[in-house]
Amino acid sequence: MTVDTKLEIQSKRTRPWLQNTWYVAALSQEVGPEALFARTLLDTPVLIYRREENGEPVALHDRCPHRFAPLHRGWREGDDVVCMYHALRFDCTGTCNHNPHGKGKIPVLAQVRSFPLVERDGFIWIWMGDEPADMSALPDYGELVSGHPNSVGYTYMPVGANYQLITDNVMDLSHIDHVHGEIITTRGQLTPLIPQVALGERSVNARWEWSQQPAMMIFANFLPAPSEPARHFFDITWTPPGHIQLSVGATQEPRNALDLDHTIGQYDLHTVTPESIDRTHYFFATRRNHLEEDAEYNAQKIAGMHGAFQDEDVPLIESVQERMGTDDFFGLEPVLMSNDAAAAKVRRKLLEMLREEDQRLG
Amino acid sequence: MTVDTKLEIQSKRTRPWLQNTWYVAALSQEVGPEALFARTLLDTPVLIYRREENGEPVALHDRCPHRFAPLHRGWREGDDVVCMYHALRFDCTGTCNHNPHGKGKIPVLAQVRSFPLVERDGFIWIWMGDEPADMSALPDYGELVSGHPNSVGYTYMPVGANYQLITDNVMDLSHIDHVHGEIITTRGQLTPLIPQVALGERSVNARWEWSQQPAMMIFANFLPAPSEPARHFFDITWTPPGHIQLSVGATQEPRNALDLDHTIGQYDLHTVTPESIDRTHYFFATRRNHLEEDAEYNAQKIAGMHGAFQDEDVPLIESVQERMGTDDFFGLEPVLMSNDAAAAKVRRKLLEMLREEDQRLG
Amino acid sequence: MTVDTKLEIQSKRTRPWLQNTWYVAALSQEVGPEALFARTLLDTPVLIYRREENGEPVALHDRCPHRFAPLHRGWREGDDVVCMYHALRFDCTGTCNHNPHGKGKIPVLAQVRSFPLVERDGFIWIWMGDEPADMSALPDYGELVSGHPNSVGYTYMPVGANYQLITDNVMDLSHIDHVHGEIITTRGQLTPLIPQVALGERSVNARWEWSQQPAMMIFANFLPAPSEPARHFFDITWTPPGHIQLSVGATQEPRNALDLDHTIGQYDLHTVTPESIDRTHYFFATRRNHLEEDAEYNAQKIAGMHGAFQDEDVPLIESVQERMGTDDFFGLEPVLMSNDAAAAKVRRKLLEMLREEDQRLG
Repeated sequence: MTVDTKLEIQSKRTRPWLQNTWYVAALSQEVGPEALFARTLLDTPVLIYRREENGEPVALHDRCPHRFAPLHRGWREGDDVVCMYHALRFDCTGTCNHNPHGKGKIPVLAQVRSFPLVERDGFIWIWMGDEPADMSALPDYGELVSGHPNSVGYTYMPVGANYQLITDNVMDLSHIDHVHGEIITTRGQLTPLIPQVALGERSVNARWEWSQQPAMMIFANFLPAPSEPARHFFDITWTPPGHIQLSVGATQEPRNALDLDHTIGQYDLHTVTPESIDRTHYFFATRRNHLEEDAEYNAQKIAGMHGAFQDEDVPLIESVQERMGTDDFFGLEPVLMSNDAAAAKVRRKLLEMLREEDQRLG
Repeated sequence: MTVDTKLEIQSKRTRPWLQNTWYVAALSQEVGPEALFARTLLDTPVLIYRREENGEPVALHDRCPHRFAPLHRGWREGDDVVCMYHALRFDCTGTCNHNPHGKGKIPVLAQVRSFPLVERDGFIWIWMGDEPADMSALPDYGELVSGHPNSVGYTYMPVGANYQLITDNVMDLSHIDHVHGEIITTRGQLTPLIPQVALGERSVNARWEWSQQPAMMIFANFLPAPSEPARHFFDITWTPPGHIQLSVGATQEPRNALDLDHTIGQYDLHTVTPESIDRTHYFFATRRNHLEEDAEYNAQKIAGMHGAFQDEDVPLIESVQERMGTDDFFGLEPVLMSNDAAAAKVRRKLLEMLREEDQRLG
Repeated sequence: MTVDTKLEIQSKRTRPWLQNTWYVAALSQEVGPEALFARTLLDTPVLIYRREENGEPVALHDRCPHRFAPLHRGWREGDDVVCMYHALRFDCTGTCNHNPHGKGKIPVLAQVRSFPLVERDGFIWIWMGDEPADMSALPDYGELVSGHPNSVGYTYMPVGANYQLITDNVMDLSHIDHVHGEIITTRGQLTPLIPQVALGERSVNARWEWSQQPAMMIFANFLPAPSEPARHFFDITWTPPGHIQLSVGATQEPRNALDLDHTIGQYDLHTVTPESIDRTHYFFATRRNHLEEDAEYNAQKIAGMHGAFQDEDVPLIESVQERMGTDDFFGLEPVLMSNDAAAAKVRRKLLEMLREEDQRLG
């Protein structure tokens, strides 16, 4: 029995995703001040809305416990939400605080499940597990919002594929050589490299350094000689359940260190939240360290990045899902190569955590 | 173990609907004199057409026993129907009476199942069970057709939800306060009421009496003072499998009894026939006791009622179906309240009958 | 237990189709010289493309063994195909011959399954079984290409039905009397006939001879007296898995033999390849023995035949599939008649072969 076969057997024992962890539920910009915003996360319909006073978001199971109407079809009364079907009213914690029927007795069980939410770094983070929300586990991507507001952009894509196919894609950046068009192509330079992969207790890091001519188009015009060669780096760190922080930059100064302090570059976050076993919410944010105040360029930049992912990655990943027909990757006995080192380590690390959570939850 | 849990367990033992009972297959007006009308009822495709001489409708399994083509794609020869694929001809009872192939021998087994039909009160009623049709069980809604022909209207809606969600909706009329727009709104007056619920041997009755200002818009203009308050009543009676007779009326005369003889009102029938576990045929008829001869008003009235159901009830009920993801209502442990008394009694009565039929059929 | 019931039980033991046999994968004209042509056959995605030098087609499993991207989304390099995701390159036999990643070591298991293909008679034939391709079993329809190139036409239709419903349809040509419109109608003359059916070791033949007035419209204008009666014949031979060679002709010369040498007629092939249990690739070719050099008439003729099948047979067959809801024909206890003799013999012969293959493969 090979290691992969063992992993496959173990994978069949686990739930399809971690429960007790922080996922992104929505971009901050997706949820307007008065909206009743609905999205299905981990096979569970969720309603998100903002308190009137301070805009703080709250999340409830998007299903009335009375006759199961979606609460997002109802209406707001202050910070409460009223079910459109029979006007049961729930407060921000999901407790029924008004029953207009009969004598108005509030049924003891008229309680909607609420989910811990935190809004930070341009995202609304949600904890959907049964264990208490672990605030110390909330990821910190404060870099995204540490500069001028016009230096950062956010976008969202629904994808018809298992969430791990998206993390596979980002963890193996050699695909950029082949899949992507002019604006972010790495011109074949990543593929020959064997990335440096480092395993943390609960993280996987990978790093590539290379030169290309011209530089990546998103950076070239900010370099002294746009058509000349430039040194580049990618540095990415996965943490569970599916957050990948990616830094990338380019320089034409031979002595510069390859980091965001010494290159024209950007600090990105790719993060995925399962909608179901074969549908995923894909969120992306990018903050650049150049032309930081230019709102028009900022809008163009995020639209360009969105276009590259939407037109080039998404159809490919969806076609992989279709060809696989399962989420059991190791069960299909993939041929793994040097470029898969980081992605495979992420899958194995996640499997470990899934087994661990399964054992803990019994 | 709670009562609901017990009911849930029992519900898992029953078929999803009663078999030996009368359902509405179609509105009379849906089946033209020459039509081969097809509709799937209780997961069974059914062909309905009318005899030439007297227009009497007949129903056959809509599937040729030879090579399983749908008979409704064929053609009529007098009162017979001919399969389009190989021209086997069947009479009104489903017996093959002509085989044009070879020597023309009629295969003994070339018999299509026929279903007892009765046309009454503007509906075509069908008996799909294996037990003999019980004529004494045929419901009588003769009130619908006891007045001027222009006083009654009929309509039909396909709904993407289990049939019991529609009976739930009608049995709890408090939803009108919240779900419906101007033409039939009850202006919040029903919700505080606890309806009077009466259980019969094979029926559930509920009654509401209230005042509102102005009256329900479908009645206000026929009252002496359209913008003034009026007393109203609803009186509804469910009988199996899913027929709900609803009477509603309004009066501004303080001494009048709240019944259709003493109010401006209407006598309605809501009735549902499962297409499948999660699709339902919803039929509705309404006969008013005012402006009875006005054809134009009649057409406007039924169109308005259809619009209210189609635009306001149907999307809501379909969203409940989607959120439930099952027909096992009690299994989801609903929080039931005073307004659910009649609807819950209907579900329990139906469960009893389903268990009874299961035991009888073995 | 009846014979049909026995067959039903046996049918439940077999795979849904033969594996070790030749199917048509595509029409020659469907696969251009530079195309990466994709089609799912027997539930397996297949890539077909042509060698540069001689146009010889090759077939590979359309799924990269690395990360399961469809190979047809990639690109060609000479006779190799390169995966679009990570640029693994495979030769015509499916062997990986270039890995651009890291040190370029080619993984031992980086092998795509290839399928034996033969291009003959205007079709690309594929062998998808695990046993060695049996060249002696390749069907010979050389008649199709033995005349002027403008005398033969080919067409293709995807059908939403099990493949055996299409062979049923062709094996029982009495359906033409009822299903088809003017261009190929047999005017009710086939139905009274009992076809002569002959069973070979691995074939079923059926023959009809009849007169009609006027002749079939595809032939009438080539006969001496287009509106007068003419003698016709159909002669069809099924061989596994689903090839039906059909000859048809008409003559007004009383002494002429009813064969293609002595009638105005055509030599056709109907052949089906399962895509899945309920979807089928339906291929058709026809070569006429008259007006052989007329390219415009040839184009009209194949378009007319395509139209007749597409508009008249396909919707009917799909409605039969829908009404059956299964591929277990005998399990539905069909009423079989004299016109079914050939079609039923084909189903039984195929069942025998399926059982035989099951036993052989264990």
